[in-house]
Amino acid sequence: MSNIRTDLALETHEYFTESAQNLDGVTVYDKSIKDIEITHVEIKTEDAASKMGKPIGNYITLSTPDLRYIDKKLYERIVRKIADEINQLITDDIEKPILVVGLGNRAITSDSLGPEVVDRLVITRHMFKHAPEILSDDFASVCAIAPGVLGITGIETEEIITSVCKKIDPSVVIVVDALAARSIERITNTIQICDTGISPGAGVGNNRKEISQKTLGIPVIAIGVPTVVDAITITEDTLELLYCDLGEKLPIDDLLHSENISKEILNFSTTPKEIDILIKKCAEVVANGINFALHDNITFEDIDILVN
Amino acid sequence: MSNIRTDLALETHEYFTESAQNLDGVTVYDKSIKDIEITHVEIKTEDAASKMGKPIGNYITLSTPDLRYIDKKLYERIVRKIADEINQLITDDIEKPILVVGLGNRAITSDSLGPEVVDRLVITRHMFKHAPEILSDDFASVCAIAPGVLGITGIETEEIITSVCKKIDPSVVIVVDALAARSIERITNTIQICDTGISPGAGVGNNRKEISQKTLGIPVIAIGVPTVVDAITITEDTLELLYCDLGEKLPIDDLLHSENISKEILNFSTTPKEIDILIKKCAEVVANGINFALHDNITFEDIDILVN
Amino acid sequence: MSNIRTDLALETHEYFTESAQNLDGVTVYDKSIKDIEITHVEIKTEDAASKMGKPIGNYITLSTPDLRYIDKKLYERIVRKIADEINQLITDDIEKPILVVGLGNRAITSDSLGPEVVDRLVITRHMFKHAPEILSDDFASVCAIAPGVLGITGIETEEIITSVCKKIDPSVVIVVDALAARSIERITNTIQICDTGISPGAGVGNNRKEISQKTLGIPVIAIGVPTVVDAITITEDTLELLYCDLGEKLPIDDLLHSENISKEILNFSTTPKEIDILIKKCAEVVANGINFALHDNITFEDIDILVN
Amino acid sequence: MSNIRTDLALETHEYFTESAQNLDGVTVYDKSIKDIEITHVEIKTEDAASKMGKPIGNYITLSTPDLRYIDKKLYERIVRKIADEINQLITDDIEKPILVVGLGNRAITSDSLGPEVVDRLVITRHMFKHAPEILSDDFASVCAIAPGVLGITGIETEEIITSVCKKIDPSVVIVVDALAARSIERITNTIQICDTGISPGAGVGNNRKEISQKTLGIPVIAIGVPTVVDAITITEDTLELLYCDLGEKLPIDDLLHSENISKEILNFSTTPKEIDILIKKCAEVVANGINFALHDNITFEDIDILVN
Repeated sequence: MSNIRTDLALETHEYFTESAQNLDGVTVYDKSIKDIEITHVEIKTEDAASKMGKPIGNYITLSTPDLRYIDKKLYERIVRKIADEINQLITDDIEKPILVVGLGNRAITSDSLGPEVVDRLVITRHMFKHAPEILSDDFASVCAIAPGVLGITGIETEEIITSVCKKIDPSVVIVVDALAARSIERITNTIQICDTGISPGAGVGNNRKEISQKTLGIPVIAIGVPTVVDAITITEDTLELLYCDLGEKLPIDDLLHSENISKEILNFSTTPKEIDILIKKCAEVVANGINFALHDNITFEDIDILVN
Repeated sequence: MSNIRTDLALETHEYFTESAQNLDGVTVYDKSIKDIEITHVEIKTEDAASKMGKPIGNYITLSTPDLRYIDKKLYERIVRKIADEINQLITDDIEKPILVVGLGNRAITSDSLGPEVVDRLVITRHMFKHAPEILSDDFASVCAIAPGVLGITGIETEEIITSVCKKIDPSVVIVVDALAARSIERITNTIQICDTGISPGAGVGNNRKEISQKTLGIPVIAIGVPTVVDAITITEDTLELLYCDLGEKLPIDDLLHSENISKEILNFSTTPKEIDILIKKCAEVVANGINFALHDNITFEDIDILVN
Repeated sequence: MSNIRTDLALETHEYFTESAQNLDGVTVYDKSIKDIEITHVEIKTEDAASKMGKPIGNYITLSTPDLRYIDKKLYERIVRKIADEINQLITDDIEKPILVVGLGNRAITSDSLGPEVVDRLVITRHMFKHAPEILSDDFASVCAIAPGVLGITGIETEEIITSVCKKIDPSVVIVVDALAARSIERITNTIQICDTGISPGAGVGNNRKEISQKTLGIPVIAIGVPTVVDAITITEDTLELLYCDLGEKLPIDDLLHSENISKEILNFSTTPKEIDILIKKCAEVVANGINFALHDNITFEDIDILVN
Repeated sequence: MSNIRTDLALETHEYFTESAQNLDGVTVYDKSIKDIEITHVEIKTEDAASKMGKPIGNYITLSTPDLRYIDKKLYERIVRKIADEINQLITDDIEKPILVVGLGNRAITSDSLGPEVVDRLVITRHMFKHAPEILSDDFASVCAIAPGVLGITGIETEEIITSVCKKIDPSVVIVVDALAARSIERITNTIQICDTGISPGAGVGNNRKEISQKTLGIPVIAIGVPTVVDAITITEDTLELLYCDLGEKLPIDDLLHSENISKEILNFSTTPKEIDILIKKCAEVVANGINFALHDNITFEDIDILVN
């Protein structure tokens, strides 16, 4: 199992399907629309959860064309679709503020998605407190933090989130994180939205603690985008293509458990060399997905003026 | 009073002295050493505190030559002097972690001193938790946050600090902030260290809430460096020089209360055009001052390796 | 004269007008349209040029509301108006490439306008060379450099421009630069477009050499935006407001020539503390003005896709 | 040959050696000293040059431990060793300025090595011109440019360098560039110094034109550091480790020429996720190597004060 090395439920599911393994308790719906592939993976039983290495819950994956080259119409459709999917996972009434948490390290480009998203959100909680008259009823009360990473703060991210939640008592927490994927082609153009929060050990930093309804006592929606691929999975990925010709399967599982492999190589994560640009484009799409999900009738122009 | 427009106790004191006003209850010691002017302003009575617009307590001000052009010896002496002064204000035993808080907005250069300092600290709390064997007894348990600003997070800085303090229960909180000064010449080469925390309305953002032992229940040391000057004080500053010739005093106080003055001008803050470089140099000096204060026997080489 | 301290012809003209001085040989047209003040200053005679301290030629100044808070319609109108004014100064047929030069120091926020504009241009010269079939006839051949500043490169900007011009033989050179203004209110919302190139000593770095048709042998259009104000002019600016009440005029000219003034203060340039955001907004507007001027029928969507 | 995919002569040589192929006309010296592996590859004949895919000349490779964790002594030894190797390749008398060229795209972290090095150089040419009295005889006349990349400027880097060389007539050109390597472990801790300039198609951007004594008419020293690895070589790298157990060799060459392989994967370059920090450390080491090579008796303290 450990060699799957992906935070995407979709890829884990593909792995099982490809290897023709039984996966009772997992349902997959295809909800794709023109130019946006949408897959809904629902993990329904403890048994399936244990096999998949992911908690029971809903995992929606949107796959888009390269965000650098899409036109405005498609851009808007992607943003609205992300908003829809977020809203379908928010089942309770939102009476209290919503807290968005941007996980990751701002100084490591591939791990900076969370903080970059926070920078682009329409934040309103303070206006509701200090000048409620300037906001129409369409706006929700939104606040956000980018708590940094353990190596920089010395504090577990989860400790900061728990304590801030106690103070501001949000209705729901939306956690944004950079993920690892198996396939290079998914980097920054696949967005996973789930209602199970953050699993231990997921994410680019690889030392995330669980952040979920179980640990916070509040519904947690996690939005993740793959920004790195492990060196080992690049190998597998390329090999798969290479070996189509030969018609034979490599004994990858055996190889991965061979004693001989340098630990260092196994832990090497890589990122496309254009990651700086890709992260910015992607952060904008995810942030606007959240802005459209939370604030009714907001326009791109409102966002332009409200976000600096 | 409001027209003094400085966060530096030293400048407030100078203002009173220059205008020959009575300031009973304030003691000023000169502790200067070669190339580093050090002044200790102690506010002792409620009456003096009210006049000065600053709480009872100790305010130490170090003034250095332009940090861009000092040699290594002077650099080290400044760092060690900052460390000394911090340690003299930490009166209690430090048994629990120390929390450093970098106030300000990372995206506004002149307000980014706090976050830039946090990036350069030797952070150890997580190592004491997860791998205590790798740290010698010389190291203190240090953690840090850069909570962002109200306009970006929608949460009062003070709310975040209070809630994180509740969780991690520090012995002392060190708050680092960018300040406003009266005099352009002080920008990034004056460092104020005080034991009274952050006063309401101080700082570059101008909407700080009080962060002090009174609000947190824990000793708070504030380290501030001026990075902006109000347009109005640049005016005063220049005028003072200009009018030496004429031997007459401008009716500045009257002028400032004249109806005719555009609010906008009064609220304009300015910063030297080289602020990007100045902030980085200054953040390094302050961070190393804190590193030397908290970790016994640490060397510049340790810091180089421990901070990335 | 030296105490006017502005790179804007408009402000120099205002200075003369205010002091009721004769300025034969200068014509001023008001071409303002809704929400955009447009002034055309034409300096026609050597005598006027010498008085104004600026060469004979056309200086168009657009003043806009704060770019952070304008709506999309006004944004588009500003961009198209800048494009119009640029095109009116390009009198020759454009058969050969156009070279845009972004002056200034990328590492000093207030001096980074030029390089930031270059980053946002639709660059096509290499495509015309290597893959002409992918570009429609609407596109011009555009190339750009950001040559850096003397202190970083050790080479006069003018030396780099001259030598690159020799190599690529452009039809016209457009130079973009950060300027100094007299009035804080103009920072990043006034755009000056002129056909006289860059005057010696202008700009934020204060050590520009002349870059003009005279030195390059090619028409030079200069686009400048004020990003700094000298401390001394902030003083004057504030004083002017302050003294309205008193009904008397300060002897500023006398004061400025008094022996007593610290040189350091006189050379202090300041910038608003929000300069990071202001520069980015402004660079986008100027770059798009150039994009619309040079490429026929280009759309904002084209720009989005062509610029990364 | 094309599947070697490395800009390092050392790796090309290893490839031939491993596959036990004849390489007459190439001499390899080991000049390693404590903690720094130094290899000198000399390509002597046209035949060898053609086999190696690299011009006749000298290629010195320094391999260091991870630059993030070295102590000050080793840091200084690495810097001085780089300086020595540069100086051994500068055979002519230096009477005229030295031009350093930082290739690459500042906005793509993995391609930003060249511009980052330029930012850290001690630049003196302008001082020799304008204030020669302030520099001792120990200083050389050094200038530098970071000409940007074709996609941003629309001008071939080689066009800019040629024209600037014509203007300033340097004694020698030092070109700094980010390279591609075969092995992940080499990223940012291997430095190649050669006297053959830049080969066509080398570097991270993959579209470099030749920059050499042949094209410029001036000696060209190239300093390159690998910052990316092609996905395909990560595959090979990992496979090699994996297959040690199995004792068999994969038919990689066959595979790479199979029709079935997606072009996209083959062109994917990756970079370690910590690339932001690695590049900065490495740029500092390379820049100081150049500073020590060119300026006699310079100290780290001089550099600290002269570089901002």
